[in-house]
Amino acid sequence: MSNDVITLAHGSGGQAMGQLIENLLVKQFDNPYLRRGEDQARIALSSMNSESGTLAMTTDSFVIDPLEFPGGDIGKLAICGTANDLAVGGARPQYLTCSLILEEGLAIARLEKIIQSMAHTARQANIQIVTGDTKVVGRGNADKLFINTTGIGFIDPRTHWGMEQITAGDDIIVTGTLGDHGGAILNQRENLGLGDALQSDCAVLWPLVEPLVHIAGVHTLRDATRGGVNAILHEFAKTSGLGFEVSEVLLPVSDAVRGMCELLGLEPLNLANEGKLIIICKNSATTQVLTQLHNHPLGANATVIGQVQEKPGVRLKGAYGVTRSLELPYFEPLPRIC
Amino acid sequence: MSNDVITLAHGSGGQAMGQLIENLLVKQFDNPYLRRGEDQARIALSSMNSESGTLAMTTDSFVIDPLEFPGGDIGKLAICGTANDLAVGGARPQYLTCSLILEEGLAIARLEKIIQSMAHTARQANIQIVTGDTKVVGRGNADKLFINTTGIGFIDPRTHWGMEQITAGDDIIVTGTLGDHGGAILNQRENLGLGDALQSDCAVLWPLVEPLVHIAGVHTLRDATRGGVNAILHEFAKTSGLGFEVSEVLLPVSDAVRGMCELLGLEPLNLANEGKLIIICKNSATTQVLTQLHNHPLGANATVIGQVQEKPGVRLKGAYGVTRSLELPYFEPLPRIC
Repeated sequence: MSNDVITLAHGSGGQAMGQLIENLLVKQFDNPYLRRGEDQARIALSSMNSESGTLAMTTDSFVIDPLEFPGGDIGKLAICGTANDLAVGGARPQYLTCSLILEEGLAIARLEKIIQSMAHTARQANIQIVTGDTKVVGRGNADKLFINTTGIGFIDPRTHWGMEQITAGDDIIVTGTLGDHGGAILNQRENLGLGDALQSDCAVLWPLVEPLVHIAGVHTLRDATRGGVNAILHEFAKTSGLGFEVSEVLLPVSDAVRGMCELLGLEPLNLANEGKLIIICKNSATTQVLTQLHNHPLGANATVIGQVQEKPGVRLKGAYGVTRSLELPYFEPLPRIC
Repeated sequence: MSNDVITLAHGSGGQAMGQLIENLLVKQFDNPYLRRGEDQARIALSSMNSESGTLAMTTDSFVIDPLEFPGGDIGKLAICGTANDLAVGGARPQYLTCSLILEEGLAIARLEKIIQSMAHTARQANIQIVTGDTKVVGRGNADKLFINTTGIGFIDPRTHWGMEQITAGDDIIVTGTLGDHGGAILNQRENLGLGDALQSDCAVLWPLVEPLVHIAGVHTLRDATRGGVNAILHEFAKTSGLGFEVSEVLLPVSDAVRGMCELLGLEPLNLANEGKLIIICKNSATTQVLTQLHNHPLGANATVIGQVQEKPGVRLKGAYGVTRSLELPYFEPLPRIC
């Protein structure tokens, strides 16, 4: 039996699976939780720097196609995406699980690279991958590799972030250029030939979030993923009943993404990011928030893009001052973006 | 756009996905964590009846084929499997996440039934599904539906269960008949026509585990899944360096599974369960353990099947007293058993 590709044997609870887990996963993710080999990770609360309080928990599956793209791969994304969903709740991402669904025939060398990428991204972010699972399905029953990561972390008690905090008059801030991830994927999938300028912005954002924990007046955070900033604004609008108006001239968009959007008739607000925050904060806190964001490379292009208003809805004020309603697309232009 | 089947729109972060989540998932799983609608569940530790201590965390993806089988479906299994991996660590399963990967074209009515099954199983077990994720891939890139569940619960401080506790002279107990789940799947897949006698034993086992928490002398627990009891014995043997000898005449096997195994030349010890425990305990605790197990319908057929020995390895003592080595198959006879 060839050792070069994933076979059904790797998923069936026998020796082949044991070897894959031991030699690749435990070795790469390397921590006492995994080495102990029980059916569940056992995490002492004292290790989480909090003996009481509130745990944040979040889950995401990653089905992105292609697996590798400029700026990252599905492994890196699987760490960043889940870590960021904890971070925007005010929780330092601490422990993740990793569940793999492998298609028979996937090259093991390719899987190894992706696992190394996960391990590297997690290590840099001080995240431990404490338990996992491996399933294999026959050729044609999955597409190469899907990854689920589920994460926990404690919410800093100084934060009370949530959509219920959003108030008319608040500023809407984004931490950098829109649509970088979607643009990079689109460029690669469709062979648009727009070169290296289009890189996914995939990144762990806790270092950008942590300084905001101290700032009263920060109301809520989100990380923009599929559906872009527009999807977040609609989520806010729907839950809060308030209005969210952004100005076209204020939107930070790279030349490469802008060019691609003009070429294809796309709206950067609808394109996915994987390394940008939307922050809603009291206007009186904005200067302090922007100062903190600008201190970090990930937030260099942070800027106010609009305001929360009483009048419900999501609106875009165009370059000539005309305001129009911004619809939520029925679907995003790109499937399997994350 | 038809509302009868999953389309790519349901996975893209737009309106279609919002409606699916709201009308099916939030509605069925129905709890304050989901209704709040943030990107992460926020769980007060005080709700977990413990202000300190050790958290258990486990993850599993479910890729079983077929989705529906005698005794359950993939939804019920997704709750039971993860709940049991917490239970065998001495943790009452309390909070689960639910991440769906849907193939374009899956009938929504079929998905609804499975979600209802998950909701029902979780409710019966006092488990809340606190956050989730939904991804859709194009036709041919998955097989109908994969589910990941990840769970947490606090480990009862009275337990110190773990493989390091296993000692020569301990008894090996199983809580009921071997191979029921694997037998039911095989019967259905291969149209063996062995009728209703073959039902998956898929069940949440915490009610069976809880009484064991008080019993000193219980050393470790596992739930038998893919690879059957044999896979567990090999895992124990590998980690402990001890020997595990079971007697053929002591193995509880239903007539239906026995008949099927004889027909197909299979070994019940290698067939999957989804509702049976293996318990390793001091011989002096065995009577008390069996009494507790027999008190519960899920443990009615609990019995000692063998002993832990100094001499390393996994062995089967046959009906005529001859002992042979029991190999761990390179792969299980049935892929996608869970």
